[in-house]
Amino acid sequence: MRILFVGDVYGKLGRTMIKEYLQKLKAFYKPTFTIVNGENSAHGKGITEKIYRELMEAGADIITMGNHTWDNRDIFEFIDDVNRLVRPANFPEGTPGVGMQFLKINQIEMAVINLQGRTFLPALDDPFRTADDLIKEARKKTPIIFVDIHAETTSEKQALGWYLDGRVSAVVGTHTHVQTADERILPKGTAYLTDAGMTGPYDGILGVQREAVIKKFLTNLPVRFESETGRGQLSSVIIDIDEQTGKATQIQRRLINDDHPFYE
Amino acid sequence: MRILFVGDVYGKLGRTMIKEYLQKLKAFYKPTFTIVNGENSAHGKGITEKIYRELMEAGADIITMGNHTWDNRDIFEFIDDVNRLVRPANFPEGTPGVGMQFLKINQIEMAVINLQGRTFLPALDDPFRTADDLIKEARKKTPIIFVDIHAETTSEKQALGWYLDGRVSAVVGTHTHVQTADERILPKGTAYLTDAGMTGPYDGILGVQREAVIKKFLTNLPVRFESETGRGQLSSVIIDIDEQTGKATQIQRRLINDDHPFYE
Amino acid sequence: MRILFVGDVYGKLGRTMIKEYLQKLKAFYKPTFTIVNGENSAHGKGITEKIYRELMEAGADIITMGNHTWDNRDIFEFIDDVNRLVRPANFPEGTPGVGMQFLKINQIEMAVINLQGRTFLPALDDPFRTADDLIKEARKKTPIIFVDIHAETTSEKQALGWYLDGRVSAVVGTHTHVQTADERILPKGTAYLTDAGMTGPYDGILGVQREAVIKKFLTNLPVRFESETGRGQLSSVIIDIDEQTGKATQIQRRLINDDHPFYE
Amino acid sequence: MRILFVGDVYGKLGRTMIKEYLQKLKAFYKPTFTIVNGENSAHGKGITEKIYRELMEAGADIITMGNHTWDNRDIFEFIDDVNRLVRPANFPEGTPGVGMQFLKINQIEMAVINLQGRTFLPALDDPFRTADDLIKEARKKTPIIFVDIHAETTSEKQALGWYLDGRVSAVVGTHTHVQTADERILPKGTAYLTDAGMTGPYDGILGVQREAVIKKFLTNLPVRFESETGRGQLSSVIIDIDEQTGKATQIQRRLINDDHPFYE
Ligand SMILES: [Fe+2]
Ligand SMILES: [Fe+2]
Ligand SMILES: [Fe+2]
Ligand SMILES: [Fe+2]
Ligand SMILES: [Fe+2]
Ligand SMILES: [Fe+2]
Ligand SMILES: [Fe+2]
Ligand SMILES: [Fe+2]
Repeated sequence: MRILFVGDVYGKLGRTMIKEYLQKLKAFYKPTFTIVNGENSAHGKGITEKIYRELMEAGADIITMGNHTWDNRDIFEFIDDVNRLVRPANFPEGTPGVGMQFLKINQIEMAVINLQGRTFLPALDDPFRTADDLIKEARKKTPIIFVDIHAETTSEKQALGWYLDGRVSAVVGTHTHVQTADERILPKGTAYLTDAGMTGPYDGILGVQREAVIKKFLTNLPVRFESETGRGQLSSVIIDIDEQTGKATQIQRRLINDDHPFYE
Repeated sequence: MRILFVGDVYGKLGRTMIKEYLQKLKAFYKPTFTIVNGENSAHGKGITEKIYRELMEAGADIITMGNHTWDNRDIFEFIDDVNRLVRPANFPEGTPGVGMQFLKINQIEMAVINLQGRTFLPALDDPFRTADDLIKEARKKTPIIFVDIHAETTSEKQALGWYLDGRVSAVVGTHTHVQTADERILPKGTAYLTDAGMTGPYDGILGVQREAVIKKFLTNLPVRFESETGRGQLSSVIIDIDEQTGKATQIQRRLINDDHPFYE
Repeated sequence: MRILFVGDVYGKLGRTMIKEYLQKLKAFYKPTFTIVNGENSAHGKGITEKIYRELMEAGADIITMGNHTWDNRDIFEFIDDVNRLVRPANFPEGTPGVGMQFLKINQIEMAVINLQGRTFLPALDDPFRTADDLIKEARKKTPIIFVDIHAETTSEKQALGWYLDGRVSAVVGTHTHVQTADERILPKGTAYLTDAGMTGPYDGILGVQREAVIKKFLTNLPVRFESETGRGQLSSVIIDIDEQTGKATQIQRRLINDDHPFYE
Repeated sequence: MRILFVGDVYGKLGRTMIKEYLQKLKAFYKPTFTIVNGENSAHGKGITEKIYRELMEAGADIITMGNHTWDNRDIFEFIDDVNRLVRPANFPEGTPGVGMQFLKINQIEMAVINLQGRTFLPALDDPFRTADDLIKEARKKTPIIFVDIHAETTSEKQALGWYLDGRVSAVVGTHTHVQTADERILPKGTAYLTDAGMTGPYDGILGVQREAVIKKFLTNLPVRFESETGRGQLSSVIIDIDEQTGKATQIQRRLINDDHPFYE
C-alpha cells in the first residue's frame, strides 16, 4: 500500500495548488491514502470547516495540523464533529480534538498520528511518550502507522524518527516549510523525512509576503504577514509500505513548482 | 566558474568522508573553488589548526564556521594567522578572525562571507546589515560572492537569500545538519539553498551518537554527546556562476551515503 | 537632585494609579525629575498620543518604553514630534523615535536612556555598546544619566548595571512587572535595581486578567489577554544623585497597593 | 508554625553565609522548618553528598533543587538514599529522586514540593498538573504544603501562585537569583513571593564572577564561569502558617548583605 503526504498547505495559493495537482498526483502515484497537513490552509493561520471540506473534496483522506491548529477560531466549531482531522496528540489533556485517527479503505487500515515538538515551541506533553502510548493502542488494530511530527529542529525530528524506527511505518516532519532531502528507510523499516515542505507560494518566505518578512528582520517593527502571491508550489512525499508488516519499502519526494514542473 | 560547497564536517567520520570523497568530487565536478564548513570538524566542536590543515590538504580552499567556532580553544592560536578561514562576520566587534576572505585562483577572484543568524541563537550584530557592508566592499574587487548563512530557522535563511538576491552569487545555509531540497536560482541570479547538510555520521542524530540524544529528549538528564560511529555521509552543493556577472546559472545538490553511493 | 521612576504603567488601572498617586508621591519625595515607563499604558500594549499627554499632565517628565513600543500603531503618528519619550536606543538604525533625551529643569540637566535586552527577546543591536556610545555623548552635557534597561533576565540587567557602574547615575530595570528587592549603590556610584515593577492591576498576572493567563499555561489554547480589574498598585523607585558628580547617593523603593497603602 | 526558606545557595561563599547566619536566623525567627534551595551549592552547579550533609548540619531540614539538579554527577550516588532532598517533581517519569517529601517535627507535618517552570527552560511535564496531583496526595496527610517553583519568568510563577491559592500554604519562587519585593498573602491564604533570591556572592552577577559574564555579553566568546569572591549575601523569606488550616498568616523577606547587615 502507498501513502501520499502533502506538506503544510498555506493559504489560498496552497489550496489552489491542491485543487490543481492533488488529483493528478493521485492519478500518477495511486496512493491508498492521502494525508495533507492543513495547519496553514486558512490565510496561513489554521483551518476552517469550509476549507477542511474543500481539502477533503480535493482528495485528502486525513488532515494533520500543528502549532497553528487554533489560529482560526472556526476549528472549535467542528473539530469534535469530524473524524478525518488530527491535531498534535501531545496537546494538554482536555484539549478539543484528537491526536490519532484510524481510517480503513479497501480492507486496509491505517493509523495517523500527529505530534508536536517542544524545542523552540510552546511547552506541551512529551511527544516521545505520547507516541509510545498511541502506537501501543494503534498496533492492536494495524501495523500501518503514519506519524506527522510537527517540529522546529532537525534534532527533535531525527530523534523521534530513530526512537520510533521499527514501530511505525513512517515519520515525516512538517513545520519548517522547506522540504529536506534526507528521505530514507531507517534500519528497522520506518520511512523517514525531516520535513515534507510547504504547499503554497513559491516566491514568499515560508509562504509569507517576502517584503514583510525582510522588513521584520531589518527593523523589528510590526508588519502584517499576508500570503505571498504569484507562483505556487506543492511539496509531497510518497511512501510504500508492506501492508502485512507495516514496514516501509520505499520513500520518494515530489516537488511541484516552476523549477520542477509537473510531468506524468 | 564553479563552486563546490561541503556542509558541516562533523568529527573524525566527517573528516574521513572528506579524505575519501572530496578529491573524487573535485575530479568529477572540476570546481574552481572548494569551500567547506568546518565548525564541527574537531569531535563535533570547533576546529583545530591541525584539522584546518588537514581539510586544506584534502582539497578545501576556504573553511567557513558557525556557532561552534570557539568550541575548541585551539582556534585562538591560529585564526589570526591564516587567510583561508572565515567565522561569522556579524560576531561582535573585537572578535578574533574575520568574516570575509578573498581568494584568487586562475585570475578568478571570489569573496566568501560567513554570517550567523540570530533566531534561536545568541544575540549578535545584524547579519543583514553586516552583509550589506561586506558586499559593498567585496564588489569593489569581484562580483563573485559566496555567502554561508549559518542559522537555525528557514525563515531567517530565506529572508537573507531574497534580501541578497542579485547582489551575491550564492546564499547557502548551514547549521541544521540536514540538507534541504529547495535549491534554486532566485529571480535576480542568486543561487539559494536553505541548508547544505552535514558531512559525518549517517546513522547519528545531526552527527551525535543517537542513543545519547534520545536519552536527552526522554529524561533531560546530562548525557555525553559523542560522535556516532559506523557509516558516513557527505553533503554538498555545486554552483555554476557566470564569472563576468557573478550571477548563478545552475545549482545542484549532491549527497553521498549508503543510500546515495558515489558514482562518477 | 532626585529622580522618581515609576515602573511599567499597565492599562487603564495603571493610568488611574498614576492620576491618583503620582502627585502625592511628588509632593512627598519632591523629585527633580519624574520618569515613567509607559510601554503598557494603552490597554497593556504600547502607548497613544492621548495617553502620552495624559501621563505628562499627571506629572511625568519623560516616558520610557520597551518591547511593546510599537504595539499601538498610534505611536507612529507622534513619536517623532515629541521630545519627552524614549524608546530603546538599540532598536535598529532607521527606527522611528530616539533612545536618549535630555531634559533641563531648574538648571539641572539629565539624560534619560532607554535600552532593551536581547536574552529571550528579539534580536537587536548590542545594548552594551549602544550604552557606551550614548553615555559618551551624554557626558558632554551632563553627568546625570538615567538608564531604563528593559530586559527579561536578571543576568543581562545586572551585567549592564556593573558594566555602567561609575558612568551613569542609575540603571533601573523594567519588563518583568515584578519589583525586585536588590536596590543598592554599586561601588563606583551607580544606583541599581533589577526591576522597578509594574503599575496597574494588583490582582492580575503581570497586569493581565489572571484566569486567561492560567488557562494559557494549562491548555496552550488561544486566550484574549485583557487587563485584570479591581485593585491597583503602583511601583516606583526614588534615587538621590549628587548633581555635581552624577553619582547616586541613595536608592529606595516604594510600592503602593492594598498591602502597602500610601502614607505620607 | 513557621517556615524559613533560604534561596539558591551558590558555591563556597553561599555555604559560608549559611554556616555564618543560618543558626542566627533560626535563633531569631525560631522556624519550625528550615528549607534551603541547594541547586547551586557545589561551585554553582548542583550539589554533592558532602555539601548536602554540610547544609543539613548547618540547620537545613529539607533541600530543594532546580534546573541545575544534575550538574554535579555526585547526586546520582545519593539522591535515592536520602529523604530530605526534593528535585523538581515534573521531571520526566523515571528520573532519579522525588519531587515531594514529608517531614514531621514536633507533631507538625509539612509537605515540600519542588517544581520547575517550562518557559525559557527545558521541556518538562506540566508543573500545574503535577502540582494538582501532588497536592491531592499531600493533603491526605497535612494541609501544610510548601512549594518551591523554580522558574525563569514572573508570569509562570505568578500563574502558579494564583492557581494554587488556597490549596497550599506557600508558593515561593527561585532561579533568578534576585529577591523580589512582591511578598503577599493571596486572597485564599497562600503566601507568595516571586523569587527568594540567592545566597552567595554579593558582588557577582547571579553569583558568577562578573567580568566573565560581562565579557560573555560583549563578545559571546567562551568564558569560564567561576564564582565571584569577596562579600557574601543571604536571601531568605519567613512564612507563618496556621497549623490547623495550612493557611499562611504572614510572609516577610530577609536579606543579609553589607547594605542590610544582620541585626537581631
Ligand atoms: Fe506550517
Ligand atoms: Fe507550524
Ligand atoms: Fe554544524
Ligand atoms: Fe551550527
Ligand atoms: Fe511592561
Ligand atoms: Fe516589556
Ligand atoms: Fe539557582
Ligand atoms: Fe536555576
